[in-house]
This record gives sequence, structure tokens and C-alpha cells, in this order.
Amino acid sequence: MAEFGLIERIRARTHVPRGDVLLGIGDDAALLATRPNEALVVATDTMVAGVHFPHDAAAFDIGWKSLAVNLSDLAAMGAAPSHALLALTLPEADAPFIDAFAEGFGALAREFGVALVGGDTTSGPLAVTVTVLGFVPMGEALRRDAARVGDLVCVTGTLGDAAAALYQWRSELPIMEPLAARWHRPAPRVSIGLALRGIARAAIDVSDGFVADLDHICAQSGVGAEIDADALPSSLALREAVDRIQRRRLQLSGGDDYELCFTIPPGAEHALRARIGDAFTIVGRIVAGERVRVLDRDGHEIVLERGGYEHFS
Amino acid sequence: MAEFGLIERIRARTHVPRGDVLLGIGDDAALLATRPNEALVVATDTMVAGVHFPHDAAAFDIGWKSLAVNLSDLAAMGAAPSHALLALTLPEADAPFIDAFAEGFGALAREFGVALVGGDTTSGPLAVTVTVLGFVPMGEALRRDAARVGDLVCVTGTLGDAAAALYQWRSELPIMEPLAARWHRPAPRVSIGLALRGIARAAIDVSDGFVADLDHICAQSGVGAEIDADALPSSLALREAVDRIQRRRLQLSGGDDYELCFTIPPGAEHALRARIGDAFTIVGRIVAGERVRVLDRDGHEIVLERGGYEHFS
Repeated sequence: MAEFGLIERIRARTHVPRGDVLLGIGDDAALLATRPNEALVVATDTMVAGVHFPHDAAAFDIGWKSLAVNLSDLAAMGAAPSHALLALTLPEADAPFIDAFAEGFGALAREFGVALVGGDTTSGPLAVTVTVLGFVPMGEALRRDAARVGDLVCVTGTLGDAAAALYQWRSELPIMEPLAARWHRPAPRVSIGLALRGIARAAIDVSDGFVADLDHICAQSGVGAEIDADALPSSLALREAVDRIQRRRLQLSGGDDYELCFTIPPGAEHALRARIGDAFTIVGRIVAGERVRVLDRDGHEIVLERGGYEHFS
Repeated sequence: MAEFGLIERIRARTHVPRGDVLLGIGDDAALLATRPNEALVVATDTMVAGVHFPHDAAAFDIGWKSLAVNLSDLAAMGAAPSHALLALTLPEADAPFIDAFAEGFGALAREFGVALVGGDTTSGPLAVTVTVLGFVPMGEALRRDAARVGDLVCVTGTLGDAAAALYQWRSELPIMEPLAARWHRPAPRVSIGLALRGIARAAIDVSDGFVADLDHICAQSGVGAEIDADALPSSLALREAVDRIQRRRLQLSGGDDYELCFTIPPGAEHALRARIGDAFTIVGRIVAGERVRVLDRDGHEIVLERGGYEHFS
């Protein structure tokens, strides 16, 4: 299959019309209209077969997740996603694989109105690099360096599900379906990110693990955090899948959740609840210091056995 | 080496200060100021070890070329490059390799004032995906679909040098230095691209091969082209390296030159020469039709043995 046919297959399955695409796929570069008084927000993430997903992962899921992890980065900035570029490296031009990949990418692109405006296809070991663009009003972006002592630490959704699926897969156990979905098709918290504008101070997406990611906020804000281990939100599936010790480990250090961890000023809880209901949980607070301390119900610190970073391999 | 140390090594070697970087490397995404009345121009290209460069290529050259091929895409749009993102996949975190890679990337970034504002580093088979951003005044971009019958077809610099280096390398001949430089460290024609604004109609960069790339202009503009094979510009090194038949083949179908191929209205030659001197050569004209015909001095068509696409493998 020539590159042109490959591009056409992808284009047909990912089409999202947008008025700000002045020139899309097919030239040396795309031309896009920008927005007055808004900052351009741009991020890129790579997923490599055998590192970020198993070699036999479903093509639909690879397409979905390659866009999802990038949209999650924009969500963590409070940005509205708009456009994407796709650099796809494939061992061979396998039409069913490409079609399913593009369907997965396209399903998520349509959900958030993201137009695929360019990219590159090349031969080589299976890997996907997606670049996403979006916009946020000037001064309203959620940054890692904006947490202040006294802020409440919040997290969306539930933690540890994707890591539990990975654990079951590695243990050659059957993977429970709700956990598998969290691992293979993460839902980027784009609308919550938008709702956090004007309320939240600092934010990050939980990709490397809750403690590791919150630690980035602490380091860049020059603060510490105290987390109540019992407050960490967990799904029913996670509670059924593993015991309490393992659950806590997965919640604290498992990656791939793609929830948002953010801080809000004390007292902002009600305003936030008016916007997003119970989509978040308060799990701790920002304190003077320089690191994340996780406390049990008696106020004793829980020390993680190892760092929070837990990729596929 | 942790990812953080790796990112710091790259950042230190690629730093370019720009006032429009509101937030650079280190958050979930970068924040950039855009420009009123200008379109955002964005392109991405991947280079894979063993496909786009030899496995033993110099790290400096890989860094240089990974940015160069992307800047070439912006040049072909008449855009001013501004920012870049780097997705780097490495088998292992090898500090000397990373340093040299970043030096090569940084040397070219500094030349064109391009700020590296984000990216991703991951483990896996060596590959680099760079995304570049730039700006062009509304309505002034050079597109592939804008050629008209009667236009003169022009090309910058010389053709076939990079392909000649590849040919010598494959033949296990010593690679002549001027040819090796064209292959390993292509010079993106950014300033010429800017000078073409308001004069050129269609443009493309010569990455797959002259005829193949001009054919994209023809297909998208709904025109044909007639090229004078003897007018194709060649370097002294190319003429010394190969015979006339081989030279013509490399000029017509060899890739990796990263010159610009563009069309200008008849009569615009003098205005262009006033801007860029002898940096271009007129090699043919746009005609009614739908394909590129290459003619010898007697007006007979030269038929290429095979398509113009010639990557490293």
C-alpha cells in the first residue's frame, strides 16, 4: 500500500470538520487560524509497542489511547483541544490494522471535535507519536507551579484501575472488563479540565502514578502535600480485584489512570461541586515542605516501596 | 538516567529564548502566544533508525536532520519557524548520545531562532518525531495547489547530492565530503521560503525526489509540467562523483535534497532574482495536463525507470 492510500484510509476514518482549519492534510504543513486573547497549548506523547502497550494490543485501542494520553495533557492545562497531528510508524502497511487504528483515533477525535490536520507515516517498529493543539484564555491555564499552602488536593474519578488491569495481565489472570477498559481506552478529563478554569490552582494528569505526579506539582510550586490514604477514590472493580494492601499500592503508584490531580483554594469546594458534581474527591492538602507524605488513618506515614513510575515494562 | 536528567541535558543544549513562549518545557503542555493576522503553520516528521538514517549515524547529525526535515516543510509553506516539540525514543539513556543529539538539534534551532518547548522521551527502538510550529501572514502561504499553466518551475540549490552520498554509502565507496554533508546535515531553505512570499505560487520541498514532489504540485493544482533535464542544477561534487546517466537519475528521483521546488508567474523571474540572487534555477514550466514530463535537449521524453521515492531503505 502506498503512503497516499494509507493516508486516505486514515483521513476517511478521522474526519472532523472545523472552520479554523485553513489547510489540512495533504500539503507540506497545515494552516490553522488561531484565537485572539487565547494562548496556544501544545503537547506531544509517544507510545511504543512493547513499552506502552502489549505487542498484541488491539489496533482500535492503540489509536484511541495515542490520542487520549495527549488530550489528557491538554485537560490538565484547562485547555480546549482543537487539532492533532499523527506520526505513525508501522512495520508494514496492514490495511485492517490501519483501519481499526484510525477508527479508534477517530472515535475519540469526534467526541472532542479534534481535527486531524497532518502527520507522517513511515516504516519501522510500531510506534505512535501524537501532537495535540488547543487553546486556553490568557492567564487561565492550570499550571504545575501554582499550588499554595492550604490548598485542598483533589483527584477526579478513581485511581489504580489501569494499573490493576496491568497487574492482572502480567499475572496471566483474566483481566476484569471495567479495569481493561480503563487501561486500554482511558477517558481524558477534558470537560472537567475546562470546568476547573477559574477555580483550580495547579493541575497535572495522573499518568506516571498519583504520588509521582503530585510530586511534580509540589516540586514546581515549592510546597509539600499530605495525603489521606483512606480518602483515595477506588472503583468497585478495583476493590474486588485486589486486597487492601495491593489496592493502596496501585492507587498511589500505578500509572495510566489519566485522571486529573489538582489543587483548589480552601472554600472553593462548593463552587467546584456546583460545576462538576461528585466527579472529584478531596484527598489531602498542600502544606509547607517539599514532598508528598501519605498518611494512614492514625496519621502515620506510609512509605512506598518504590517510585511511582510504572509503565507497561 | 531518569527522564528528568535526560530532559535537562536536552534543554541545556537547545535553549533559544523567545518572548512568545509563555510556558516551555516542564508542564503537561506548552503555552504559546500566537499572532493576529497570521496563520499557525504546523508539521511533523518522523525519522527511524535503519529507515531514514543508518543505525551508526552520528548523533549530532540525527539531531540536526530531525529538525531540518521539519523546518524544510515550513520553508515550503513560506512560514517563519518559531517553536518545536521533540519526541525522542531511545533504546537506552546514553548520555554522550543524548548530548550530541541535542547539540545537533540545538545548532539548527539557534540558527533559526526555534525554541524547543516540549516533547516526550521514551524507551524503544531509536526514532525521532519532531513537530514544528511557525507563522505565515494570512493568505500568503505557499500551497501545493496554486500552480497555474504558464508558470515557470524553479528549484533552489542543486539536486541529487544527498542521493549520491547514499549511493556511495550503499556501494561501500568513500563518501565525498560535500555530498555527505548534504545527506547528513541538510540546510532547510527557510530564508528563501520567506523571500518567496508574494512572488511564488505553488511550492513543495524536495524530500521524496524532484519528479515525485513536483508531481504532487501538479496533481493538487490540476496541471502538468515539462522539465528540461539539462537545466537541472548539479553540484561540482555530483558531476565528479557519477556519470551523466546516473547523475540525471539521482537529480530526478533521488530524495533527501530538501531544496524547494516552486512555481512563479511568467515575468516574476527578475523580482525573485532581486530578492534571492542566483539561489534558484528555472528548470521548466507548468502546462495543461496532469503529469510531469522530463525532456532531453531534443525534446524527447525521458522515462524514469522507477518512482522517485528513495529513502535510506
